[in-house]
Amino acid sequence: MRLLFLGDVMGRAGRDAVAERLPDMIERYRFDFVIVNGENASHGRGITEAHYELLRDAGADVVTLGDHAFDQRELMTAIERHDTLIRPINFPPGAPGRGATMITGRNGHQVLVVNALGRVFMPPMDDPFRAVDNAIARCPLGEQADAIVVDFHAEATSEMQGMGHYLDGRVSLVVGTHTHIPTSDHRILRGGTGLMSDAGMCGDYDSVIGMELEEPLNRFVTGLATARFTPSEGEATLCGVAIETDRASGLCTQIQPVRVGGSLSQALPQF
Amino acid sequence: MRLLFLGDVMGRAGRDAVAERLPDMIERYRFDFVIVNGENASHGRGITEAHYELLRDAGADVVTLGDHAFDQRELMTAIERHDTLIRPINFPPGAPGRGATMITGRNGHQVLVVNALGRVFMPPMDDPFRAVDNAIARCPLGEQADAIVVDFHAEATSEMQGMGHYLDGRVSLVVGTHTHIPTSDHRILRGGTGLMSDAGMCGDYDSVIGMELEEPLNRFVTGLATARFTPSEGEATLCGVAIETDRASGLCTQIQPVRVGGSLSQALPQF
Amino acid sequence: MRLLFLGDVMGRAGRDAVAERLPDMIERYRFDFVIVNGENASHGRGITEAHYELLRDAGADVVTLGDHAFDQRELMTAIERHDTLIRPINFPPGAPGRGATMITGRNGHQVLVVNALGRVFMPPMDDPFRAVDNAIARCPLGEQADAIVVDFHAEATSEMQGMGHYLDGRVSLVVGTHTHIPTSDHRILRGGTGLMSDAGMCGDYDSVIGMELEEPLNRFVTGLATARFTPSEGEATLCGVAIETDRASGLCTQIQPVRVGGSLSQALPQF
Amino acid sequence: MRLLFLGDVMGRAGRDAVAERLPDMIERYRFDFVIVNGENASHGRGITEAHYELLRDAGADVVTLGDHAFDQRELMTAIERHDTLIRPINFPPGAPGRGATMITGRNGHQVLVVNALGRVFMPPMDDPFRAVDNAIARCPLGEQADAIVVDFHAEATSEMQGMGHYLDGRVSLVVGTHTHIPTSDHRILRGGTGLMSDAGMCGDYDSVIGMELEEPLNRFVTGLATARFTPSEGEATLCGVAIETDRASGLCTQIQPVRVGGSLSQALPQF
Ligand SMILES: [Fe+2]
Ligand SMILES: [Fe+2]
Ligand SMILES: [Fe+2]
Ligand SMILES: [Fe+2]
Ligand SMILES: [Fe+2]
Ligand SMILES: [Fe+2]
Ligand SMILES: [Fe+2]
Ligand SMILES: [Fe+2]
Repeated sequence: MRLLFLGDVMGRAGRDAVAERLPDMIERYRFDFVIVNGENASHGRGITEAHYELLRDAGADVVTLGDHAFDQRELMTAIERHDTLIRPINFPPGAPGRGATMITGRNGHQVLVVNALGRVFMPPMDDPFRAVDNAIARCPLGEQADAIVVDFHAEATSEMQGMGHYLDGRVSLVVGTHTHIPTSDHRILRGGTGLMSDAGMCGDYDSVIGMELEEPLNRFVTGLATARFTPSEGEATLCGVAIETDRASGLCTQIQPVRVGGSLSQALPQF
Repeated sequence: MRLLFLGDVMGRAGRDAVAERLPDMIERYRFDFVIVNGENASHGRGITEAHYELLRDAGADVVTLGDHAFDQRELMTAIERHDTLIRPINFPPGAPGRGATMITGRNGHQVLVVNALGRVFMPPMDDPFRAVDNAIARCPLGEQADAIVVDFHAEATSEMQGMGHYLDGRVSLVVGTHTHIPTSDHRILRGGTGLMSDAGMCGDYDSVIGMELEEPLNRFVTGLATARFTPSEGEATLCGVAIETDRASGLCTQIQPVRVGGSLSQALPQF
Repeated sequence: MRLLFLGDVMGRAGRDAVAERLPDMIERYRFDFVIVNGENASHGRGITEAHYELLRDAGADVVTLGDHAFDQRELMTAIERHDTLIRPINFPPGAPGRGATMITGRNGHQVLVVNALGRVFMPPMDDPFRAVDNAIARCPLGEQADAIVVDFHAEATSEMQGMGHYLDGRVSLVVGTHTHIPTSDHRILRGGTGLMSDAGMCGDYDSVIGMELEEPLNRFVTGLATARFTPSEGEATLCGVAIETDRASGLCTQIQPVRVGGSLSQALPQF
Repeated sequence: MRLLFLGDVMGRAGRDAVAERLPDMIERYRFDFVIVNGENASHGRGITEAHYELLRDAGADVVTLGDHAFDQRELMTAIERHDTLIRPINFPPGAPGRGATMITGRNGHQVLVVNALGRVFMPPMDDPFRAVDNAIARCPLGEQADAIVVDFHAEATSEMQGMGHYLDGRVSLVVGTHTHIPTSDHRILRGGTGLMSDAGMCGDYDSVIGMELEEPLNRFVTGLATARFTPSEGEATLCGVAIETDRASGLCTQIQPVRVGGSLSQALPQF
């Protein structure tokens, strides 16, 4: 099967790009399943239920989140209403929503999606390695699940690579989000798992990771905050990764970067 | 002119790849100038004078460093002997060596290379923005310098993007090192500066950022250190970025990723 | 001469305690000079000009600040109007206000007060060691200055102790602020400098470092923010340190903790 | 009953002070139970089995640890042999040793001791709040346990205060270790739990948190490491806290700081 994963949708620019381009891409490349990280969809901070629905309408089968999961306070209750909207699995027990979901795709495939937060250079959180381990143990790849995708929302490349190798052979894809910059280390590990350190964001790259230049530059140079951060509204690059998986094993057979529109070099799946 | 920048050379695997491949690349693509980050060349920790010379022999015009600059203690004195070996410019005054160097390339071009350390998620250091500013103010691009390359050794993508935009129009290239994972956000900013968040490492990617899998995985999973980190010795991917600059302005006219050998997808300059 | 230093004034509880108790303390112990850290005086976040004046009216000769210096945006201009209100000296050049001030006390003593920010576990900032060094070099203790007090606003005890020993013999007192918890390591170092790792806050200790319990506990336990932090308004303990200095050398001859009111054990100077 | 808690024993200076002074203190103040944090007992890094036994011989009923728990590699197996030697409870499952222990004191009291690691400004670890919660739920205070002491090995005062209030009414004492500087915020919270943010170290305070001055100062000033840290060997101050608990409830009725010997101001229990 063919899956598409898109990284952090950043504000209006990111939402618009997803709404405009995703439906065509799904049709053109016949993606069986689409996952979109929406943690910055609403003003760069979290996601409202309405914007979640906008991403779903555009073709996202599952929307994942990150450290900004509940920045839009309404999501604390809204998340309970949607089994296709997940937050990091390694919040402490009792957090609203769930961290993994098994969904049937448009062509009948069973896909397990897990979202987890890294801990290196990030706030304290439960152990992501054990949390993901538990989630995939319940529906093993190639048995209950036709594909398993882990969105590991992490800062440090070491932790990202660690998670990839830790899960190698047991999931279809480990893909990072959170740094808002796409990496070009997409590859298939020895055990058959696809790995890409960061999907990049769906946002305007003529910015500081999606925010208008002025205030971030001001803070770096003066050490003082004088205004809020504002999402940059130039044309977004849709960033992510596309994979093909083996019908029987669920492992990754192809992995290709996706970068469409905006100011980054363009990349489209070759399958 | 054409420049090649290669990211953190990691241990023996990285050194071997540079020694084997760099001479051919220089010839084939007619690079006028080559910069190599060598902060992990010796056992993954710093660089000895002998390994610095090995990189020079392979074609590096300038070798840059990073947070591991002086891990090999001998470099504290050795660095003073080489004007083509620089350490981050924003160490406190009095640190051995220098943080910027103006070198004449093989075809007569004057190239200013500056190395700086980021501070987000990294140990305290002097302000890299002011430090780089001062260095480039003394030999402006298009006047004394035919090209200016800034190796910004940083962890956070926000600081990286900030530095790129801060220097836009004033240097030829801002390229990140340190995360050991290449990014695919290479582009030319509005002012004409080439930017790429991380060049990636020259090392074996079947690893955790260049280190053999076992101990990093053990630490992530158990929280306990039980052994040292050992550089991984599989075939390295040579990672970096190639640019072309404008003869008059020194600004970037082309920017292309380079990934050669090893387990990453391959990329060669198209010019 | 006798000096009193009071730590971070925290919201209304802290301001009230200073206003009510400081005038009596100055009279009773015949303090020649009083320094108050006011970085949390206004709602726990920064200080307004009006609250600065309230602290001055209560007897503060100099008000120091910290990482929250400019949380009340009005201070960016107001600070320029007051030579008895200082912010950390190691902000980048160009920051509003100044980081050191020489003031004549009520009994004619010349006192140099320097404020600096630590960098360990804190945001990037200029080097505090060099910055303080420069400030005290201009008016040496026992010559231009009858006393020199350094308020080192720092998180890590290692950096705090480092600063104390670094300045030993050159200033009267190095006192920490920022952790909001008073330490009992007040002592006179070999060179004659008084050192205390943290003065503690002037605030309600039936709290989480001055904030009402509920939201901090909620965040520690659930990992989620659900409300803002609110300064706790129970009775404050006035926390700080009192020293006596040698008339000729300006070095510290006595150092004693001060804890008055509220829920902490009480301590008053014994001289 | 009367309990004594002593903070991080630092190298030879700390061990000697414990060996020389603790037996007398136990006799003089009739302590029913003594807990000593030994995480830096051996060369400042971890503890050997022999040094653990030295602390036991001096009168420690239980020895606790911290982030340096297994710096002496032999402890990974040795810890299994001793139910009076515990490491932080919030290591991932499978770590050697245990994080809580119920011990019968010399006068027949049942004391539960729990050791936990903070996570703010510290490496990733399991949730200490839940971990401690679980440990004390199994033997509630005033029922199975005559006293419960929690050694919370933490950097940030906010997390420390949070833990104190979180456990208020459910344990006899929450005491911090790790910063190596004693605090003077010892008090009894509303629910009856004694709290002190940091016990301080048992070590030579004419140092940078127990290490000889030269190398720490060098690193702060130059940003470069040029030597190892060496424990300072001047006379140690024995630092800690003494409490009395209520026979029936097990809650804290008295809390007093202890500082004996060395360069800090002296404090002895007044009961
Ligand atoms: Fe994001
Ligand atoms: Fe994020
Ligand atoms: Fe590196
Ligand atoms: Fe590095
Ligand atoms: Fe404060
Ligand atoms: Fe502060
Ligand atoms: Fe310690
Ligand atoms: Fe520790």
